[in-house]
Amino acid sequence: MCQLLGMNCNTPTDIIFSFTGFVPRAGITDHHSDGWGIAFFEGIGVRHFVDHYAAIHSPLAELVKSWPIKSTNVIAHIRKATQGRIALENCHPFVRQLWGRNWVFAHNGDLKEFHPTLEGLFTPIGCTDSERAFCYLLQAMQQQFGNNQPPRAELAEFLQQQCHILAQYGTFNLMFSDGDALYVHCSTNLHYIVRQHPFASAALADEEMHVDFSQLTSQQDRVAIIATSPLTNNEIWCQMSPGQFIVFVDGMPQGEECGQNRILSA
Amino acid sequence: MCQLLGMNCNTPTDIIFSFTGFVPRAGITDHHSDGWGIAFFEGIGVRHFVDHYAAIHSPLAELVKSWPIKSTNVIAHIRKATQGRIALENCHPFVRQLWGRNWVFAHNGDLKEFHPTLEGLFTPIGCTDSERAFCYLLQAMQQQFGNNQPPRAELAEFLQQQCHILAQYGTFNLMFSDGDALYVHCSTNLHYIVRQHPFASAALADEEMHVDFSQLTSQQDRVAIIATSPLTNNEIWCQMSPGQFIVFVDGMPQGEECGQNRILSA
Repeated sequence: MCQLLGMNCNTPTDIIFSFTGFVPRAGITDHHSDGWGIAFFEGIGVRHFVDHYAAIHSPLAELVKSWPIKSTNVIAHIRKATQGRIALENCHPFVRQLWGRNWVFAHNGDLKEFHPTLEGLFTPIGCTDSERAFCYLLQAMQQQFGNNQPPRAELAEFLQQQCHILAQYGTFNLMFSDGDALYVHCSTNLHYIVRQHPFASAALADEEMHVDFSQLTSQQDRVAIIATSPLTNNEIWCQMSPGQFIVFVDGMPQGEECGQNRILSA
Repeated sequence: MCQLLGMNCNTPTDIIFSFTGFVPRAGITDHHSDGWGIAFFEGIGVRHFVDHYAAIHSPLAELVKSWPIKSTNVIAHIRKATQGRIALENCHPFVRQLWGRNWVFAHNGDLKEFHPTLEGLFTPIGCTDSERAFCYLLQAMQQQFGNNQPPRAELAEFLQQQCHILAQYGTFNLMFSDGDALYVHCSTNLHYIVRQHPFASAALADEEMHVDFSQLTSQQDRVAIIATSPLTNNEIWCQMSPGQFIVFVDGMPQGEECGQNRILSA
């Protein structure tokens, strides 16, 4: 199994604080050391870093921890291999193109006996169940909607249905984005928090670090952080339910009330 | 216009020396400062770095200059914007997938009035003539060969024809790879050199640096370096002719005699 980290916000924001709390799970506070990756949307462009070495030993992860890349949608992953050898082509997140957009996909879980019929355009490069699921999703989207991207609500409804199909094959915690929205499906473990005005301080659970967000933000900023397990120990994170599917837009979980600025102790 | 750098070899090799000589052209010895990028094949996986800041000011370029990433096929690019604004989605090289492979593309030149009919799977994200040409090539490959990759020689013949078509729209210096071979088309400026046993020393033209390759290599190693203009000043590079198309495999330009270890002074 693996761990996931996502960010969706209304203002380009760096993910240094959350990523710093996430990386120790790749071998120090947890054992997900078979590769890692992160993708940052900057507008419609994507910066994509993957590495088949453990994040705690990666010069690239050191760079990401110190370089404030501003993004409105980020997906990160640390890998504990279940299917597919330790190799660059098997590291998440995966990035592919459809409808003139980049699509970024990361998966935590294990799909058993999932072997959909995939065509030349959507055939996997590596040998993971996850990349097969990504190719399957893009192919299904293209078959459903043709050559033009549908409105967000229509796509979200379709993705939710597809996630329920995929979850029949096993654990399918998903983060998926085109830079416009962050689509999240929970099969077992996912938690989120929304930070907005009035901002407070947060302290990492896995590393000695805290940040006073009130010093770094404006009143309009809103940031949703989604992770396999909570990254801070002084905020109340909202636990997603098995089967739950949420679309995050501009830092807000659409149609959800949970997880907004619930501070345990500052 | 832009500058290109490519490497194709029979043994995974780092490109630090050549990249160090290439980067100063992004603002010091030349003026290509509207972004840069590099893609490394590691087996069938790809490490892809792009940045819309000048390479000489990029923390990512600093990392690439100091991190010996071993690869058999590398394509790098520094950009002087002619079409398309300075943005991440307009930086080369571009990476897309077809036939269960990654395809990496970088272009130097300027295609005038090139607006092919592109479908949903191969529509550009940014707004450059180059990405349109990449999408056009992949679409043409898929239309010609269907869902299965043809043998290399068959693909090479097809790509050569397509390059001649594209070159009718303007300058089209191309580097293109699936990690198996490096396909190169020269429209105006491209030079290459093949380094193999007995290796000698090389000194960069744009930077104070020299390397004695005999200390770093084995007798079996063979490395082809291809660049817009020669990177070293003590080796004789082979200048490609306008319209010339070369396939590099295992460090060898197929069917060519030029450019092999011609040392001016060690």
